[in-house]
Amino acid sequence: MKPGRWTTPANPSDTVGDLGEAALIERIRQRVPTAPDWVLVGIGDDAAVVEPQRGTLDVLTTDTLVEGVHFDHAFVSPWDLGHKTLAVNLSDLAAMGAAPRVALLSLVLPATMAAPALDALIDGMLALADQHGVALVGGNITRSTGPLMLGVTAVGSVRRRRVLTRAGGHPGDELWVTGAVGAGAAGLACLQRDPSGPAASDRDLAACVAQYRHPEPRVRIGMLLGRNKAARAAVDLSDGLADGLRQLTSSSGVGATVDGSAVPIAAGARQWFEAQGLDPLEGALAGGDDYELLVAVPRAHRRRFAAIRKLTRGVPFTRIGELTKAPEVVLRTTSGDRPLPAGYEHFTQA
Amino acid sequence: MKPGRWTTPANPSDTVGDLGEAALIERIRQRVPTAPDWVLVGIGDDAAVVEPQRGTLDVLTTDTLVEGVHFDHAFVSPWDLGHKTLAVNLSDLAAMGAAPRVALLSLVLPATMAAPALDALIDGMLALADQHGVALVGGNITRSTGPLMLGVTAVGSVRRRRVLTRAGGHPGDELWVTGAVGAGAAGLACLQRDPSGPAASDRDLAACVAQYRHPEPRVRIGMLLGRNKAARAAVDLSDGLADGLRQLTSSSGVGATVDGSAVPIAAGARQWFEAQGLDPLEGALAGGDDYELLVAVPRAHRRRFAAIRKLTRGVPFTRIGELTKAPEVVLRTTSGDRPLPAGYEHFTQA
Repeated sequence: MKPGRWTTPANPSDTVGDLGEAALIERIRQRVPTAPDWVLVGIGDDAAVVEPQRGTLDVLTTDTLVEGVHFDHAFVSPWDLGHKTLAVNLSDLAAMGAAPRVALLSLVLPATMAAPALDALIDGMLALADQHGVALVGGNITRSTGPLMLGVTAVGSVRRRRVLTRAGGHPGDELWVTGAVGAGAAGLACLQRDPSGPAASDRDLAACVAQYRHPEPRVRIGMLLGRNKAARAAVDLSDGLADGLRQLTSSSGVGATVDGSAVPIAAGARQWFEAQGLDPLEGALAGGDDYELLVAVPRAHRRRFAAIRKLTRGVPFTRIGELTKAPEVVLRTTSGDRPLPAGYEHFTQA
Repeated sequence: MKPGRWTTPANPSDTVGDLGEAALIERIRQRVPTAPDWVLVGIGDDAAVVEPQRGTLDVLTTDTLVEGVHFDHAFVSPWDLGHKTLAVNLSDLAAMGAAPRVALLSLVLPATMAAPALDALIDGMLALADQHGVALVGGNITRSTGPLMLGVTAVGSVRRRRVLTRAGGHPGDELWVTGAVGAGAAGLACLQRDPSGPAASDRDLAACVAQYRHPEPRVRIGMLLGRNKAARAAVDLSDGLADGLRQLTSSSGVGATVDGSAVPIAAGARQWFEAQGLDPLEGALAGGDDYELLVAVPRAHRRRFAAIRKLTRGVPFTRIGELTKAPEVVLRTTSGDRPLPAGYEHFTQA
C-alpha cells in the first residue's frame, strides 16, 4: 500500500475542511509538473484549453470511484485511489486504441479528510499520468456530505479508421485476452477478508492484491493494436471477462465460443477461488476489476497481430475462442457447454 | 419547478436500485436524440469518439453538484438539477469564449431514487443541451452510499487567439458585467426560508428564484466576445462578482476600481437583502450562483464591443469599473472606498 493516511495528520487542524477550496487547488497545482506546450490553459481558469493533434479524433471517457462502493479506506490508501481512478479511465481509452492526452479531476471530499491524504492521492494519480504522458489540466473540488468520491475524465486521441470499438467484431475473428483474469476479484476478496493482505510468502495471492491496488492499464497495447489495425474490436475487462464478452458480441451482433480451459486465470486467483470452494473459471469470468483487454483479431490480420505480440513488454496474450455467426456466447468446458456467469453490475445492490 | 419527483414512483419497485446499470444506461440512451455526424462513437462503448473541428482548440471543464452542498431536494426538482449541472459547465466554456460541443455525465445515485426522477434529470439536461447544440456522448453510473452527485464534463472548441482567459486583462481595460447579480444568492436564500418559494405576485423575487433554478449560461455572448476579440479577459460569476473580480485581477496581475453604484443588482435581490437588513451591494457581490460573465474590454475595442452589445438578445451589459496598474481591488461607494467582501468558498464549512 503506497503512502498517505486518510485521517489524523501530524497537525490536527490540517484537514481539507480547514484549508478551503483556493488553498486546496494551490496545493494540487504545486504537485502537478509543468504542462506540455500543447496545453494552452491549464489548472485555474474557467476551463482548460488544449490543442488537438492534427488529423486525429478526440476520445472521451469519465469514471467515478465512490467510497464504500468501489474502495474501502481499510485497505486502499489515498495514493492507490488516485492511481486507480486514472487507471480505470486510461483502460477505457486503451480499449478504443487511443493515446491518452489530458485528464480532468473531480474531487468530492469529506471535510475531515487529512490534507496530506489529498497530496498522496494527487501523487498517485500523477505517477501514472507521468508514465503515459497525460497532463492533468483542470477539475473541481467540492465538499461531500457523505462518502469521498473521485472522478476522472480522460481525453485521448486516435486517427480515424484506427478506432477500436466494441462493435467491430465479425464471425470468425479470434478472441484474445491480455494478461490474466480473476486477479482483481481475488485480490479484493482477500483484502475484504483481511485488510492487512496475505503473507508476503504467499506470492501469487500477493500479486493479485497488488494488481487490485495498482492496476496497469494496457495503454500501449491498445494503441499498437489500433494503429496497426491488428484488431477489429476491443473492450476492457473492468466489469469482468463474462461482461466483456457479452458487450463485444452484442455490440458486434455476433456470438462467440470460448474455450474454458484456455482462459488465463491468475495463479493466485485460482488458488484463492479453490480455497473458497469456488470454481476458479466461474470466479475469474464473473469477477470485475481486471484492467485487461479482450480483442477480436480478424484471421487475415494474424501475422500483424503476431508481430504486435512481440512488442508487449512481457504482457502475454492468450487466445480464448472466436466470434461466431450464431448469437449465443458458449463456454466450452471439459464437463460440457455452459452459459456464461453474470458480470459485475456496479449499480444493483448486493 | 420542472417535472420529476425524487422518490415514490407510481410503481414502488421502480427505483434506480431495482433497475441496475444496464437498464439505466438504456433508459438514458432512449431519451438522448440522435447524435450529430461528428460524433463517431456515442453512448455505450468504453469511451466516446468525436471529431474536433479543424483549426480549433479543445476547451474542457468539469463540475459536480452534490446533494446537501449545492442543492436540496426540498426545492430543486430532478429536471432543474439536470439543467443546472450542465448550465454550470456551459457557463465555464462561455467564459473562455468557446462553442460547447459535447458533454459526459457522471451519475452517482442513491439506490432509492425513483427511476422517473432520473428520466426528468436527463430531460432537464437534454433541454439545455439541445438549446446549445451540445451532444451527450457518454458517462458512467454508479451507486452512492450517501448523497446524490451529478457531474458533467463539457468540451467545447475555440480558435487559437480567440480564447478568453482570466489572465488577459490589462490596466485601463473597462470592466463590464452581463445581466444582473445577486439573483442566485437571493433566490437560494428565499427557497431556504420557504421551499415553496415566493408568492407569484412577488414578481421580482420570483424571478430570482427562477434564475437560481434555471440559470441561463451566457454561451452565445461568450462566443461573440471571443470570436470578435471584443474582450480580452473573462470569468463567470458562479462564485460571485467579488470572487470573479479577484480571479480576473490576480490572474492578470492587475487591480481594479469598481463603482459600487454601477453594479447591476437584480431588483428582487435588492428587495430581499434590504428586507433581511443586509446591504444589497454587499450581498450581491458576495453571493454565488450568478452565471453571468465579467469581461475586460480594451479601450481600443470599444466600438467592436458596442456592436456586440446589440446582439445579446435582451441581455444587458453594464460597465462597473476598470482595471488598474495598482494591484488592489477598490470598491468605490458613496460612503467611501471599501474592501471587497469575500466570495463564496465551496469547500469551507459554514
